[in-house]
Amino acid sequence: MAVIGATERPGALGRKPVDYLLRYGYEGRILPVNPKSPQILGLPAYRSVREAPGPVGLALIMVSAERVPAAVDDCVAAGVPVAIIASSGFAETGAEGAALQAEVVARARAGGLRLIGPNCIGAVGFHHRVLATFSPLFMAESVPFEPGGLAVVSQSGALGFGVASLALERGLRPGWVVSTGSDADVTAIEVLRALAEEPGCTGLLAYLETVPDVTALRELAASGKPVALLKSGRSAAGSRAAASHTGALATDDRVLDGALRQYGITRATDVDDLLDMGRAFSGPHRPRGRRVAVVTTSGGSGILAADAIAEQDLELTPLADETRRQLAEIVPPFGSAENPIDITATVLSDPSLLDRSLDTVARDDTVDMIIGCFCVMAGADVDKAVRSFGRVAEQYGKPVLVARTGADFLAPDAPAQLRAAGLPEYPSPARAVRAAAALARAASGAGATRPPVVAPPGTQHAVPASDATEPQLKRLLAAAGLPVPPGREVSDAAEATAAVAELGGVAVLKAVVPGLLHKTEAGGVAVGVTTGEAAEVFARLAALGGTVLVERQAPDGVELIVGVRSTPLGNVLTVGLGGIFTEALDDVACRLLPLREGDAAAMLGELRGARLLEGLRGRPAADTAALLRVLDSLSALTTDWPTGFELDLNPVRVLSDGAVVLDAAYTLSKGAAA
Amino acid sequence: MAVIGATERPGALGRKPVDYLLRYGYEGRILPVNPKSPQILGLPAYRSVREAPGPVGLALIMVSAERVPAAVDDCVAAGVPVAIIASSGFAETGAEGAALQAEVVARARAGGLRLIGPNCIGAVGFHHRVLATFSPLFMAESVPFEPGGLAVVSQSGALGFGVASLALERGLRPGWVVSTGSDADVTAIEVLRALAEEPGCTGLLAYLETVPDVTALRELAASGKPVALLKSGRSAAGSRAAASHTGALATDDRVLDGALRQYGITRATDVDDLLDMGRAFSGPHRPRGRRVAVVTTSGGSGILAADAIAEQDLELTPLADETRRQLAEIVPPFGSAENPIDITATVLSDPSLLDRSLDTVARDDTVDMIIGCFCVMAGADVDKAVRSFGRVAEQYGKPVLVARTGADFLAPDAPAQLRAAGLPEYPSPARAVRAAAALARAASGAGATRPPVVAPPGTQHAVPASDATEPQLKRLLAAAGLPVPPGREVSDAAEATAAVAELGGVAVLKAVVPGLLHKTEAGGVAVGVTTGEAAEVFARLAALGGTVLVERQAPDGVELIVGVRSTPLGNVLTVGLGGIFTEALDDVACRLLPLREGDAAAMLGELRGARLLEGLRGRPAADTAALLRVLDSLSALTTDWPTGFELDLNPVRVLSDGAVVLDAAYTLSKGAAA
Repeated sequence: MAVIGATERPGALGRKPVDYLLRYGYEGRILPVNPKSPQILGLPAYRSVREAPGPVGLALIMVSAERVPAAVDDCVAAGVPVAIIASSGFAETGAEGAALQAEVVARARAGGLRLIGPNCIGAVGFHHRVLATFSPLFMAESVPFEPGGLAVVSQSGALGFGVASLALERGLRPGWVVSTGSDADVTAIEVLRALAEEPGCTGLLAYLETVPDVTALRELAASGKPVALLKSGRSAAGSRAAASHTGALATDDRVLDGALRQYGITRATDVDDLLDMGRAFSGPHRPRGRRVAVVTTSGGSGILAADAIAEQDLELTPLADETRRQLAEIVPPFGSAENPIDITATVLSDPSLLDRSLDTVARDDTVDMIIGCFCVMAGADVDKAVRSFGRVAEQYGKPVLVARTGADFLAPDAPAQLRAAGLPEYPSPARAVRAAAALARAASGAGATRPPVVAPPGTQHAVPASDATEPQLKRLLAAAGLPVPPGREVSDAAEATAAVAELGGVAVLKAVVPGLLHKTEAGGVAVGVTTGEAAEVFARLAALGGTVLVERQAPDGVELIVGVRSTPLGNVLTVGLGGIFTEALDDVACRLLPLREGDAAAMLGELRGARLLEGLRGRPAADTAALLRVLDSLSALTTDWPTGFELDLNPVRVLSDGAVVLDAAYTLSKGAAA
Repeated sequence: MAVIGATERPGALGRKPVDYLLRYGYEGRILPVNPKSPQILGLPAYRSVREAPGPVGLALIMVSAERVPAAVDDCVAAGVPVAIIASSGFAETGAEGAALQAEVVARARAGGLRLIGPNCIGAVGFHHRVLATFSPLFMAESVPFEPGGLAVVSQSGALGFGVASLALERGLRPGWVVSTGSDADVTAIEVLRALAEEPGCTGLLAYLETVPDVTALRELAASGKPVALLKSGRSAAGSRAAASHTGALATDDRVLDGALRQYGITRATDVDDLLDMGRAFSGPHRPRGRRVAVVTTSGGSGILAADAIAEQDLELTPLADETRRQLAEIVPPFGSAENPIDITATVLSDPSLLDRSLDTVARDDTVDMIIGCFCVMAGADVDKAVRSFGRVAEQYGKPVLVARTGADFLAPDAPAQLRAAGLPEYPSPARAVRAAAALARAASGAGATRPPVVAPPGTQHAVPASDATEPQLKRLLAAAGLPVPPGREVSDAAEATAAVAELGGVAVLKAVVPGLLHKTEAGGVAVGVTTGEAAEVFARLAALGGTVLVERQAPDGVELIVGVRSTPLGNVLTVGLGGIFTEALDDVACRLLPLREGDAAAMLGELRGARLLEGLRGRPAADTAALLRVLDSLSALTTDWPTGFELDLNPVRVLSDGAVVLDAAYTLSKGAAA
């Protein structure tokens, strides 16, 4: 490993990596590069990496920005496969820096060199003690260094190493920490994808400010390794700050949320949450589903756990009848034999109570995970509880997460005991529950491995013409299996009258005028038109300058807005309840295309107003299955449409039997390929 | 202090309090009571508290439930003012236990003895080392015991002492920990209220499962001491578990939420959140408002802080122009001179950067609080940062909260330094922000001290008759200053026709039939009735069995549902957007009556669909001021109405100019006083 820009000067950043590599006993050769010093910290130094004895597996570049291109050229010449550019002064400083960055990336790519950074703090491989970093983390006198299977990747160096330091302190045993800075060549997601392939990797945590690389994200998810992301810029203010920090365009946060759900990746709400998930990922067992049993010695903890489960995508299992019957015989009368199961502090005088309860619960097929809660317990009582939880987890192969709401001074050995027993530990029931939810989501294999919904054979995947009219669009939709109202385009009053008659004597008439986007506002739509009125209405609509579409009038139903648009992450399907719901509440759900099996239903489940589909106020329930078919067909049709478009089906009316696309509009953004 | 049920038997609960009091050096006399032992742990024991040398200030009763009544009698006879009943076997076990509990409370009250418990773990006063508890907390070998100003009160003993142990471990310095168990006599809220009066009390934290005592809650808030509550049972499942745990009826969680907002009390989401708020309360400064400046050495932390501020009732201040101008000169070009202010890691080479930035920010009158963020910093760098933050907090008297996302091993002295400097410290920006929000809410003096809205002089505060009809109700509302449509009740067709003519030739006619609650569904409402149609419509409506109300037809507007009902916590006003919003989204806000200044506006701000009032789709904005007057007038009218009623104004239509109560219904629950 070469350190380009190494120096012996005390306090200089360029001294730190060499110092760290020496102090922590890097297993390979350390090659300091500095044109002015023949020796650095007792090691022979080289004027250029070209002159260093090869092969060089990794170069850490720490010279100032203007000297980076030459250093990159040197790495290419020396056949270095990967370089980490720690230097700043690139895209984050403005146009000039961006040009320099592009130049550096171009030279590296041409030479077959992959780059991490620039503007990062470096990377660490704990297993082989590759400390390619100047992070102050390793200045600490005593770094608790015990390599494990957790990968930590961060676009922010400070936060990444901050999180890593907390992971070390909390006994989470990271194996890799990589800061990727500006992601100029290799992105943070690509690093995660690569680390997921490491056999010893048990889970991955990341802090990200931009997520441009959705293909790598999908592949990362498909690796089967559990992943949690802390992505900042959720709010408008945060998003502005992120754009200013990274110089990159903000990712549409809602699109990202949809994609992560799709791929079974959990989005952490905070640093603790991220680390809590990492702790769960490090446990030896994976849940088969999302049904949780809570076993507690404190009634209060059980209630807090139940509250937290209700807020997560988990289920507080009602337990099998036989389980409840058995528990009723085991649990004291002032406890609770229902889930959350409160075995009470009686466990202190009868430790077998915990074993008997846990066995009964763990045997129950409706239990995928157990959350064990206790509060202030000291000394031997904690030992016994840990043994019980550990035995049950191992014997039944089900994850057991422990919420221990008590200080470490009560049981100083407990953290180590819990770790040794493979029991993830949390200071509160809610934190254990959130981590359990992430574990369940990751274990579900969620989106990445489910098959995408595909078009039925024989349907067309045409792309609309840039000036497609409503009737043209609807024909295209109909060919793709989407339900549109029967009707036809007419160009004189007699045809209009005939068409209304054909459709049963009452119909909807709509002006078809290329470029007229707001038909209703322009008076271009007439509903409930009878055969007798048809000629007059036709004349009025035709006066707007085009033809007229006569359509069968649909019965009442629940209206939704369904749309597909291209985004930097890919084509995205959005669904929301129509009218004021979308406008006042912004109540929409979205997913990247293609939808996969179950995605459409999950989207509807995310809508706050989804109860409307169930038929409130005595109305019949809406045909949700028909709506799901609309979403799936639309996915099959539009997944491969080229960028720069927006397709709006507004509204899609869901009836008590079936659904129908009442209106459709297609627009191209400026500069998009027509 | 007497310990009734004290014993020397190793491992027995009755041994622990005597043991703890001896070990930790209780400052008063310890009086073990046990009819069978003349001496316990070297202390003289007494057969009854009657025989112990008085005066006895506190008795801890640990005998089995059936012996508690006698122990209570003894305490009364001995003139003990307060007894803690730790024993279980009362209301939590069923009807028999509840009867025993009632008996015990009755005897105590008759004898002038106040009770805490039963079914609790006792209480601790750290200042005088009153360890009236058998909590295993004090079994630990080394309890970090440094009394401070924080009070911890919990209905759950296990969680209360669990939280207290974490508070001790995290250096929060509790002064009092009280578990109140079943709240049979003195409630947890009353204990909080009493502790708030202690001069040394700086803040109060509580874990609660039921909150019945709203008067004490209001008085607690009025004390001016900051309070945070962790109240479990938010979810349906949690609420069921809480009811099973406490035997008490669940509090309507939404009503409680409204009351807490009203009183400036923050509801913690979890144990960490509760302790984080306690940490903020312990700081020496109070913010004057909710405007926050973030000063960070890590761009990522700044973005996370901005995200968190957007989710809280805080404002990321845009800063004064002059401040931004000065910061632009101080902050490096690759940092950010906008809030969040990113001074970058350059601070490591130029420590004055932090001082200069902080001074500039702290001087700015738009800054009420500062959140300082840094990640991995070690040794002297941390010392310098802590000194800068501490100096600025003291010099400008503004709270500075520190988010240090890095392990303690990086700077082992940092926690103590931060504590000494009065700087609350958090492991992530989001946790600092949530604590800052609680501090701002508590400092605002929120509800408890704001004046209630009162009725204008001369308005009536009548209570409706139990069978009040819509016209009667509306007259009552109008007399209280609420806007109702002009109109009159008619009993024949000619009157109806004349009334429509008077109202401008088009009016609304409504059947007035006592007991007919669903008028619209019964065909009892006709809108847009012309003078010509009036007679016919009258006949149809009168056929339903009553008179007819003719009212002026109101223009279009935004419809809301406004209601007042009596609850165990008091009369509660609820407001929600009408129609599908209320039905599908349950989008309502509520407050206890009387509303105080600002409450009505805050309620509207909580509605997710509040944007509807702003006038979407080019509609005029609704007259929100008129709506606020409706809510305030309704509060003045109904605050003192006796229990057992429900008043629904559904809908209240808010126009572009004014608002009008279109319908009103009043119902009494069974058994309520008519």
